[in-house]
Amino acid sequence: MTLLDETPDTRYLQLADTLAEAIRRGTLRPGDRLPSVRRCAQTHRVSINTVVSAYRTLEDRGLIEARPQSGFYVRSTLPALKMASAPSGRIEPPADDVLALIDTVFAAQQNPAFTNIALACPQTSDFYPGGKLGRMLSSQLRRQPDLIGQYPLPPGSLRLRQQIARRSMTLGMLLEPGDVVLTHGCMEALQLALRVTTKPGDCVGLESPTYFYLLPLLASLGLKALEIPTDPQLGLSLDALELLLNEKRLNAVIAMPTVQNPLGCTMPLAAKKRLARLMNDHQVPLIEDGLYAEIQFGGALSPAVKAFDRDGWVLFCSSFTKTLAPDFRVGWICGGRFHEALRKLKAVSSMSESQLLSETLATFLESGGYDHHLRNLRKRYAAQVDEARALIARHFPRGTLATQPAGGFVFWVEFPPGVDSVALFHQLLEEQICLTPGTLYSPSGRYRNALRLSCCYPFNARYTQALARLGARACEMSGLPPGIAQDG
Amino acid sequence: MTLLDETPDTRYLQLADTLAEAIRRGTLRPGDRLPSVRRCAQTHRVSINTVVSAYRTLEDRGLIEARPQSGFYVRSTLPALKMASAPSGRIEPPADDVLALIDTVFAAQQNPAFTNIALACPQTSDFYPGGKLGRMLSSQLRRQPDLIGQYPLPPGSLRLRQQIARRSMTLGMLLEPGDVVLTHGCMEALQLALRVTTKPGDCVGLESPTYFYLLPLLASLGLKALEIPTDPQLGLSLDALELLLNEKRLNAVIAMPTVQNPLGCTMPLAAKKRLARLMNDHQVPLIEDGLYAEIQFGGALSPAVKAFDRDGWVLFCSSFTKTLAPDFRVGWICGGRFHEALRKLKAVSSMSESQLLSETLATFLESGGYDHHLRNLRKRYAAQVDEARALIARHFPRGTLATQPAGGFVFWVEFPPGVDSVALFHQLLEEQICLTPGTLYSPSGRYRNALRLSCCYPFNARYTQALARLGARACEMSGLPPGIAQDG
Repeated sequence: MTLLDETPDTRYLQLADTLAEAIRRGTLRPGDRLPSVRRCAQTHRVSINTVVSAYRTLEDRGLIEARPQSGFYVRSTLPALKMASAPSGRIEPPADDVLALIDTVFAAQQNPAFTNIALACPQTSDFYPGGKLGRMLSSQLRRQPDLIGQYPLPPGSLRLRQQIARRSMTLGMLLEPGDVVLTHGCMEALQLALRVTTKPGDCVGLESPTYFYLLPLLASLGLKALEIPTDPQLGLSLDALELLLNEKRLNAVIAMPTVQNPLGCTMPLAAKKRLARLMNDHQVPLIEDGLYAEIQFGGALSPAVKAFDRDGWVLFCSSFTKTLAPDFRVGWICGGRFHEALRKLKAVSSMSESQLLSETLATFLESGGYDHHLRNLRKRYAAQVDEARALIARHFPRGTLATQPAGGFVFWVEFPPGVDSVALFHQLLEEQICLTPGTLYSPSGRYRNALRLSCCYPFNARYTQALARLGARACEMSGLPPGIAQDG
Repeated sequence: MTLLDETPDTRYLQLADTLAEAIRRGTLRPGDRLPSVRRCAQTHRVSINTVVSAYRTLEDRGLIEARPQSGFYVRSTLPALKMASAPSGRIEPPADDVLALIDTVFAAQQNPAFTNIALACPQTSDFYPGGKLGRMLSSQLRRQPDLIGQYPLPPGSLRLRQQIARRSMTLGMLLEPGDVVLTHGCMEALQLALRVTTKPGDCVGLESPTYFYLLPLLASLGLKALEIPTDPQLGLSLDALELLLNEKRLNAVIAMPTVQNPLGCTMPLAAKKRLARLMNDHQVPLIEDGLYAEIQFGGALSPAVKAFDRDGWVLFCSSFTKTLAPDFRVGWICGGRFHEALRKLKAVSSMSESQLLSETLATFLESGGYDHHLRNLRKRYAAQVDEARALIARHFPRGTLATQPAGGFVFWVEFPPGVDSVALFHQLLEEQICLTPGTLYSPSGRYRNALRLSCCYPFNARYTQALARLGARACEMSGLPPGIAQDG
């Protein structure tokens, strides 16, 4: 793990990150001239060389451009997505089609010949403190040589649940260790949450687009999916949700109000409060998927909806799979009024989690290194997202739109008319490049002109070439030239 | 781990095990006189001292007794259980009562002040090669330092699935790695098997008594339980099963034909073949729980029912939780004709298993140490079971019956009239001793006069005193003296 904060020769990266953040937040806007190198060095109390390196880094990330005899300017960014036409209608998830496609994607992901630019399965192992966790795991075994030979019983590691409860305050939640049930990743947390709040035949409200695995999961539980219009920047439409709640058409809602997958957006604070109030007023459970909530790019973390949960109708699910130890598959759920039922359902569904892995995570969290790690993780993913968006601006057909994610490592791209992402998927598969077409993200198969991109892969020539190939194919298909219109 | 086979000063233990096996199989019967020490030394080509030590060991285990001026005799063993009155009727599992009781038991198990003599959660960590697995795990991390930071995708470790497929031959099965789905322990395997073969409202046939967690599991899935008469020595009554299948009253059957929990019995080979034929003929899925199938005490392993599965109607579930690494919670399922559906359901239910833990298990299995470990594990559990049964013969009220397990570490005890195991449970809880009353093992709450005992705990003074206390309490309750009638 590189310690960006601490080594002097990476000061330029800190400066680049600060400026990138200003561009992302709109403090510096497309067409704005950056301060001169000399002025910037004075302002930030760094050397001229540091500023030059920082500006070059931002140029590489596609955020600024040099204009001869004039200076550095903020580049035109990708136009933001506006809300698509409102989806509607209750739909049986087309589980088999989606699963067959996902199977293809998973198989390709595991074939070293393929380049994956779409799945949210971190392969950026140098972004995660695997070495440190490995040493802590070995030292755990030295301290407790009996651990592997002992059967772990629910509710599992108290130390880990204490750490989870303590850390939940950073997202505005006040949890006790006894409120937390450990699960086998966030996927099991969502599965248990659905089983405990619904029965077969029930109808579950979803964001649109939504996390693709929810569709076969709902189908496997005999649940119906109802798409709720979702703004690419503001998240779930609460007006639409309120209408559906008033009409008593929803038995539960499952949503990612913070760093949504696939859009990358976070709901504004006021909307989160209103969402919590709506669910509690209507006494309908909200399953809040907080998987990416700790990887927010902004300064202060936007709190979870669970933070405003009056009567326990919000079930908060999360995991360390994307934030700390992808391989461990240790997740957790805080089930509010469903806690007791959840605790029991977990035990009869898969009993418990490995004590060795749980205690190792607890040791890492107790060591205080987690916040430092998260700061780095956010910066590194933010930088990769910037670079990917810059490549899209260069290679994708004119008229392409993309979301500006508030965190995580995925975002959503919408092509101009004439581009079919399912056809692109099949074309690129022949070139051993793997995509996830937009249709995967909707139970009604909409979003055929869109796709999700993921930046959790090493940002090497192979990845950038794959993005360029995708852009070229999309340009061919649409008949449009690459590159966005320059403004400013 | 003690290497019983290899160190010369443990030769007496080998001899004791050989003789214990002869007693268990009935080659030596209660009342039979053992060969003289001299003759035995000649026959087995060992020293006099070795024979003396072996006989003392068998005396300690309660299998033989010395009679003055006469020699050593095989002791009267506990009378075997005969089949109870046939259970019948379709029942909604009383999930909440059972769960509340199990919660108490689990909580007690985790309280160091309590002595547990009932749960099947190995705490005999020196029976498991934790040290060796820990070293293999650390070396895995040195070879693949990136492993913790990489997201594990289904279907998971090919090496582990290859080893599972290869080893399945020891139970008569011919599996390919592609037939195996890794799961989060056997509990998840059973849960997925039920979800993939049934729908809410369906009726599932169970052994009686059965594994207690099946009852709340069935309830959580909206399934009905139907108890099938089960012989304490021969297992599931196939005549009763055939009747129910003919009447089309079962949508699936879940059973442990090899080393049943809680009885400990294994079905005869011919019965296993008939069971496979019945299920295939009626096209009703059999979920075969093979959790203890590798811990059989006899010489050759009795094969799985899956070995005789003609058309793929048998789903075989197992785990390394009781045999190798209790903490890892890595299990597996071979789903026959349901394989594809199972593979998909696993992925949407909890995605995948840790690659680090799976690869570590694969390394252990490839190293060839597993068979040696299993031989030791079987001997050690067989010895603990013998000792526990000897203590029961000494301390429990006259008229107590017990099963003679064919493997594993649990067996079933039936008290004479007047003993209520639920009352015993509450009484002993006050003495900080934890039991599981027989009622837990039946959806209709029968077996109030029975309980399961478990020998997966260190066989120390604390454990033996707890057994003695249980015996004393049962004697008080029944008004009967302790000890079985002497015969021979």
